Amino acid sequence: MGSKKIAMLGAGSWGTALAMVLADNGHDVTMWTRRAAKAREMNERKSNEQYLKDITLPDRIHVTTDFNEALADCDAVIISVPTSGIRETTRQLIRAEVSIPLVVHATKGIEPDTLLRVSEMMAEEGLYALTANVVVLSGPSHAEEVAKRQPTTVTVSSERSEAADSAQNLFMNPNFRVYTSRDMVGVELGGALKNVMALGVGLAAGLGYGDNARAAIMTRGIAEMTRLGTKVGADPLTFAGLSGLGDLIVTCTSQHSRNWRAGYQLGEGAPLDQVLDQMGMVVEGVKTTRAVSQLAEREGIEVPITTAIYDVLFNDQSPVQAGKQLMDRVPKHETEH
Amino acid sequence: MGSKKIAMLGAGSWGTALAMVLADNGHDVTMWTRRAAKAREMNERKSNEQYLKDITLPDRIHVTTDFNEALADCDAVIISVPTSGIRETTRQLIRAEVSIPLVVHATKGIEPDTLLRVSEMMAEEGLYALTANVVVLSGPSHAEEVAKRQPTTVTVSSERSEAADSAQNLFMNPNFRVYTSRDMVGVELGGALKNVMALGVGLAAGLGYGDNARAAIMTRGIAEMTRLGTKVGADPLTFAGLSGLGDLIVTCTSQHSRNWRAGYQLGEGAPLDQVLDQMGMVVEGVKTTRAVSQLAEREGIEVPITTAIYDVLFNDQSPVQAGKQLMDRVPKHETEH
Repeated sequence: MGSKKIAMLGAGSWGTALAMVLADNGHDVTMWTRRAAKAREMNERKSNEQYLKDITLPDRIHVTTDFNEALADCDAVIISVPTSGIRETTRQLIRAEVSIPLVVHATKGIEPDTLLRVSEMMAEEGLYALTANVVVLSGPSHAEEVAKRQPTTVTVSSERSEAADSAQNLFMNPNFRVYTSRDMVGVELGGALKNVMALGVGLAAGLGYGDNARAAIMTRGIAEMTRLGTKVGADPLTFAGLSGLGDLIVTCTSQHSRNWRAGYQLGEGAPLDQVLDQMGMVVEGVKTTRAVSQLAEREGIEVPITTAIYDVLFNDQSPVQAGKQLMDRVPKHETEH
Repeated sequence: MGSKKIAMLGAGSWGTALAMVLADNGHDVTMWTRRAAKAREMNERKSNEQYLKDITLPDRIHVTTDFNEALADCDAVIISVPTSGIRETTRQLIRAEVSIPLVVHATKGIEPDTLLRVSEMMAEEGLYALTANVVVLSGPSHAEEVAKRQPTTVTVSSERSEAADSAQNLFMNPNFRVYTSRDMVGVELGGALKNVMALGVGLAAGLGYGDNARAAIMTRGIAEMTRLGTKVGADPLTFAGLSGLGDLIVTCTSQHSRNWRAGYQLGEGAPLDQVLDQMGMVVEGVKTTRAVSQLAEREGIEVPITTAIYDVLFNDQSPVQAGKQLMDRVPKHETEH
């Protein structure tokens, strides 16, 4: 496979780590960010200290604040922006009026109120008129470890399997193994829903619960995710895979996760406003919790873990009470539902 | 429920923690150990420092080296000895010629060569002539956390559902929640098989792999456990529950686990003999890896993770090569098997 020209929209930790994978594979990556100081730091000092400590960016990564420059003659666009920025980014792409053979998004969320997945938000903005090659990339992948070239596996999925194959070819290397899935609904939902569970597990840790409780909440959590996802068309097996269980495990069992840390502070008794102020980064799980609550209500699915977290975030529920709810199972038999 | 008289056979960390749960529930527990010094320490100093640091044993726990004293007039016998001690302990029980209304075992293993589960080993020794009320107790439960009364959930299962209900009633309390399952095969296998995975995850950590790799190995690990377990009669849903996935998570994501620590040292390059010498406690996963390999071969099921670990333990495979095998998946599509 020859060298490609890739546009990376977003210069956060995940976008930067993915750009590094692409550069390692011999591709030329132009990253776009609105922030001139960030672009300067990344170009001149080859670093992105705010998001990835002690990383040296490869020479094949160039950063610009000029959206059109990033897109010029590109073979693929990778999007790694917060869920709340997906619509605006998609509109910018469309306004640029360039030819785009492939779009890969690496954003994990569900939009509150509309309850759309990321690729559905993009579709609603008209992206598919530019290309039907729209792919999601998701899986158990802390950006910090990918940037250090530690072994990582992810899943790519698209409604067009050729598009998923193209994305696989772009990203695959010995440290970063990429598998394809035909279940785009399940892959997108897994990445979004696990952020809610990470808040819950963090909250339990903030209450002083230990590893036994965490394992119990995660076990119930993947069941809850599977129940809801299957109801809206996902394949239950996807939730047992890398983008479901794998991502849940990595997010809930390490303290890299912003959602986990936010949950932890809530468990210790800090109010939500203060937690969000202190994080200084987007905590996707907070908005996702609202969206998942709405989705579960619309679909008539019980989601006790999500509900417990929702009540802490938005209904002044005490974390102690929520912690009890997280450990509570009504049925005496484990497999009764 | 009134106070019962319970015999606990085994005074390791898990037996001691379970005895504390029973004592907290108002039962009188007589623990049996062969070691007089251990019995003296536990009775006089109310401690078991070798296995559980900084724990004060409740007054309702009494420890004896006299097997018959422990069994006298007991309402239930709990067995928490290594898998290699199950047959001898069962024979002692039978020789004692006392009436035993309920036997609960909390031992996680499979016997090499015979490939029997723990309750099958007990059956082969004739336990069911004493009572058909034989129960397994398993789940995500570090003894250290149970002894500190941190929230914990476990599963009990028996071929007789009344027996499982009795065990549930004995152990259930607000910190230690007990669920019943009808799938004794799956509950016993889950607890045994996850020890193999803990060795694998520890080995990967010893090689310097990070959380992304750990999550990938665990995701493949539960699939491997489910595949093999289902082939020998377990319900696949059991592996998605507390005694399967839950126990896998707790064992693979915290460094309390002896199997994880043994795997870690192997990953760093230490030879098996030296690792086992240094541990000073039974590492169930080592023998279980041999048994699972044999079982998979008999059943014609591919178990690439178990095979990778087996090869390090018994075939002089290098940990680096095994690490690659742990991350390797032949199919390009995630759900192809």
